[in-house]
Amino acid sequence: MYRSHTCGELRSNQVGQTVTLAGWVQTVRKFGSITFVDLRDRYGITQLLFGEELNKVLDENPLGREFVLQVTGAVSERSNKNANIATGDIEIIVQSFNVLNKSAVPPFTIQDDTDGGDDLRMKYRFLDLRRNAVKRNIELRYAVNRAARNYLHGNGFMDIETPFLIKSTPEGARDFVVPSRMNPGQFYALPQSPQTFKQLLMVSGYDRYYQVVKCFRDEDLRADRQPEFTQIDCEMAFVEQEDILNMFEGMIKSIFKEVKNIDYTEAVERMTWEEAMWQYGNDKPDIRFEMKICNLKFPAHTFPAKQSQSVLIDGADFKVFDEAETVVAIAVPGCSEYTRKQTDELTEWVKRPQVGMKGMVFIKCLPAEASAQEGNTGITFKSSVDKFYSEEKLKAIAEATNAKAGDLILILAGAEERTRKAISDLRMYMADKLSLRKAEDFKLLWVLDFPLFEFALEDQDGGGAGRWVARHHPFTSPKPPHIETMINNSPKVDDLDKYLEHPYAGIKANAYDMVLNGNEIGGGSIRIYQRELQEKMFAALGMNAEEQLHKFGFLLGAFEYGAPPHGGIAFGFDRLCAILGGSESIRDFIAFPKNNSGRDVMLDAPSAIDTKQFDELQIKLNLK
Amino acid sequence: MYRSHTCGELRSNQVGQTVTLAGWVQTVRKFGSITFVDLRDRYGITQLLFGEELNKVLDENPLGREFVLQVTGAVSERSNKNANIATGDIEIIVQSFNVLNKSAVPPFTIQDDTDGGDDLRMKYRFLDLRRNAVKRNIELRYAVNRAARNYLHGNGFMDIETPFLIKSTPEGARDFVVPSRMNPGQFYALPQSPQTFKQLLMVSGYDRYYQVVKCFRDEDLRADRQPEFTQIDCEMAFVEQEDILNMFEGMIKSIFKEVKNIDYTEAVERMTWEEAMWQYGNDKPDIRFEMKICNLKFPAHTFPAKQSQSVLIDGADFKVFDEAETVVAIAVPGCSEYTRKQTDELTEWVKRPQVGMKGMVFIKCLPAEASAQEGNTGITFKSSVDKFYSEEKLKAIAEATNAKAGDLILILAGAEERTRKAISDLRMYMADKLSLRKAEDFKLLWVLDFPLFEFALEDQDGGGAGRWVARHHPFTSPKPPHIETMINNSPKVDDLDKYLEHPYAGIKANAYDMVLNGNEIGGGSIRIYQRELQEKMFAALGMNAEEQLHKFGFLLGAFEYGAPPHGGIAFGFDRLCAILGGSESIRDFIAFPKNNSGRDVMLDAPSAIDTKQFDELQIKLNLK
Repeated sequence: MYRSHTCGELRSNQVGQTVTLAGWVQTVRKFGSITFVDLRDRYGITQLLFGEELNKVLDENPLGREFVLQVTGAVSERSNKNANIATGDIEIIVQSFNVLNKSAVPPFTIQDDTDGGDDLRMKYRFLDLRRNAVKRNIELRYAVNRAARNYLHGNGFMDIETPFLIKSTPEGARDFVVPSRMNPGQFYALPQSPQTFKQLLMVSGYDRYYQVVKCFRDEDLRADRQPEFTQIDCEMAFVEQEDILNMFEGMIKSIFKEVKNIDYTEAVERMTWEEAMWQYGNDKPDIRFEMKICNLKFPAHTFPAKQSQSVLIDGADFKVFDEAETVVAIAVPGCSEYTRKQTDELTEWVKRPQVGMKGMVFIKCLPAEASAQEGNTGITFKSSVDKFYSEEKLKAIAEATNAKAGDLILILAGAEERTRKAISDLRMYMADKLSLRKAEDFKLLWVLDFPLFEFALEDQDGGGAGRWVARHHPFTSPKPPHIETMINNSPKVDDLDKYLEHPYAGIKANAYDMVLNGNEIGGGSIRIYQRELQEKMFAALGMNAEEQLHKFGFLLGAFEYGAPPHGGIAFGFDRLCAILGGSESIRDFIAFPKNNSGRDVMLDAPSAIDTKQFDELQIKLNLK
Repeated sequence: MYRSHTCGELRSNQVGQTVTLAGWVQTVRKFGSITFVDLRDRYGITQLLFGEELNKVLDENPLGREFVLQVTGAVSERSNKNANIATGDIEIIVQSFNVLNKSAVPPFTIQDDTDGGDDLRMKYRFLDLRRNAVKRNIELRYAVNRAARNYLHGNGFMDIETPFLIKSTPEGARDFVVPSRMNPGQFYALPQSPQTFKQLLMVSGYDRYYQVVKCFRDEDLRADRQPEFTQIDCEMAFVEQEDILNMFEGMIKSIFKEVKNIDYTEAVERMTWEEAMWQYGNDKPDIRFEMKICNLKFPAHTFPAKQSQSVLIDGADFKVFDEAETVVAIAVPGCSEYTRKQTDELTEWVKRPQVGMKGMVFIKCLPAEASAQEGNTGITFKSSVDKFYSEEKLKAIAEATNAKAGDLILILAGAEERTRKAISDLRMYMADKLSLRKAEDFKLLWVLDFPLFEFALEDQDGGGAGRWVARHHPFTSPKPPHIETMINNSPKVDDLDKYLEHPYAGIKANAYDMVLNGNEIGGGSIRIYQRELQEKMFAALGMNAEEQLHKFGFLLGAFEYGAPPHGGIAFGFDRLCAILGGSESIRDFIAFPKNNSGRDVMLDAPSAIDTKQFDELQIKLNLK
């Protein structure tokens, strides 16, 4: 061993001991005839003192940043103690040293606030990983991994490895494929998830399975997507939805405790998918703050259980609202004093192509201090639609949005899907602006009762347009009362415009997502375990019998030999770590990530391969 | 939850409780008007008793093997206790039951001694996995995984995930490659091991790394090889060989304790590679038994430190020995009474093409009981070469082999490499025959000081013939005293026949293998960490500067920025599990293995892919 101690462990009670340390030179500070060096390793930083004699040696062979150094010396009490670091009470009076390796001048500083740009740091990721900020992320990732494993082990789960070279069954996302040299013309696929394998394990009787496992999806990379990513993948047999929710909120709470020392003792909130869409405009709401949506107008077939309150806006001859399918509002706290410039900026923001609104209506709920008299509400309203709506009407709208004095009501109008998404985006935008989304506040939520199907009006993945697609995946079970609906109805949709009126549109899935701070961190479902229902499901998705057997014959076969009821969940491990680490970028929590073109710029991969490799694989390029 | 208890947990102190169980029907036994059912799950088997009333229901809807059943009933003391199973004191008097799923008649019996052939069990692997014998293996695998992780965690190692989509750098084995859709014409490779990444992590300062990780090699599959396999992969910085040996024999001992409850307290034996070849004829000797090789004749340049004792066989005019490069013998205990038929069989065995000997000489060391007199050795010798060697000569040979009365000495002669391998094979064959290789005896061994290079007289992997190849891998450091030899000599070999006289042939590596019961379970090395030496190494292997930069530029670059001394090891996880489980077949310890053609017969993978996939990847087939 090149060291007797690490650079993070010496304290004043070790003063007088002779120790050997090894690590990297963080800084060199020369004061006259002595030199101080901060020596860094994974565990911390220790100050070294080179006295006059050794200083002469250093003069001839200067130490540079990131040199690898081994020193032996005596632990000594510091005169100038540094309370900022754990070893700040001591220093090492160096007796002898050995440069184990030199270093060129690093292309950026190895510090929390580095001067290196993103591309440079990715190219030299091995240096970026030395930075304390990155190291903390990697350590947090390991702590989450360890906490999850310990919890699952304690609850009788077994880590069982599933294969990586499997069969290509393109459903939804694209597979990465691997040509087989031994079976020319044939290809393996890399798993998008171990879904069917974990279900087979349930059929095999391994009733509690888990894996922390790499998965692969060949998607066009949006920001913060990686072609390879990690899941905490779990499955249980002989369970109902309630069992899974309890087990896995237990896991997340255990991770909170182990990793962040947070006692998350409160019950995890639950919300139906419909309620999430109604109140927050999306299926993974951040519920750390309010600003719930006020639905002034909405399509009745989308929310059949809700009562219209469009009387609040009707009859004012305001065409924008009258002609819109959906009119939704949020009351933003404390922004009633926004200037014209500020409201204009918000209007510009919602008009950006990514949001896609044509405009925005606002109502300022001004605290009417000056004019406040007995019997007055204490608010005066000022809006961008004053000429259409009387003060009384504005007041009624404000009451519907639960606005208080000082709030700014923002209203969007347009087609349902786009408008709802826009108000949801606007809500998050305002929350960020008002610092309502604090990285160290954590709030969990279960979203339940998702629709089983979505209707693809346009072709999504080559399966054709005008058909049902699985919202979660084709193995998700319908809610028990909806199984009949599924079995007794043909999936055929005659009038594409009225797909929402088809019985399948109302079928709810036995599926659940876990949401943390507005991010989906996990999702799962109770699975189909009967061959007939699974066949019906495949058929509903447009797969004929031959295709079903070709792609999933092994699973249908397995269901004939005593498949138990089962269900599971998969957590996005990278995302979970990022949120726990107070970041929304998963890349920061992956040791060797790829960029947005799927490239590893450090390795320079992917890259060309040899002619010999093409020959052996019996494939060739067919570049367009 | 479909159950209140598992099928393995009820005991007589729970008699009287009402419980709900769920599991699979193992057996149905009808006795008049009552029926006994053995219900099985992952945890055990519980006997169910269906009384007269329910029996009538069963008559109409009979239960079959592997039906999935949920029952509620009272725990009752059994009159006929079964001491063979943990729940044998009780049974459940069924009050109500629910068939959760039916099962077709399984294609083979779900029992330890199944009637299913290998192919059938692989096709229905999800049923095979239900068998207790297989389940025990999968459980053992998880226990080993868990024990290794706990040990490593306890010693400050961090699990850090390395990427699966990397750069193809064919060295030795073939890479599996993955076409990149987003980078047309370019390919990722799947890692043969995370070697370079774990070294980069050391450069990054994460001084103790581990991973239980899938690796991929596109090799022609020999028996018991898998294209994807799992390693326990580890690396440490600031260590020397001795530190690694201590750390990882600690890990294996800890696994022995946790998994098998074996206190492996003795020191792990160590042996140089040369000594292993000398005494056992191979580099992974099974040292649970003796039968060491007696080297009657050997090439001096192969074992320069050893003294010749060919005087024992010289001068007898026995051409087979006189003309052979190598003559080696083993003394097989207790086989002196072998019949002519038995020795003939052994001769046939060594003449098989896989062994490749031309013949075999034997000497029987017969206990001379009848003729035993004072002063006599008590042994008479009878050999297949009596006409060449006198009794005295035979006695001298026998003494050299350490043969005792009752032993059978077997002698092989021929070219060095083949003969040494043959005697090693024969030694193992005889040990199996004599039951000296007991699955529950475990003996560890470190083999050290491997040669750094091998000389490829013939082309192995397209790199050309007549060149040095890395015995371990190109990142292995030479022993410190041999670094000079490497730097100061050109790798060029002028006379291929005399490659053993080239200075490179004598360079030893800082490498080590861990051997368990004659199987290599782990191997590793202290790594090169200086750019210059790494370049010299690449050059010695025939890689020019351009190639070096193209393939390993990132690593050479990393070595410029303060790479610490480091080393590591990787354990073959599948193999380790198999040996601990008393088997030599790794396939039995993998949940979903592939067959010898690299096929998953359950999935039917690999398989053809869609035209659309070819189009998107911009590749096409080029079948010969």
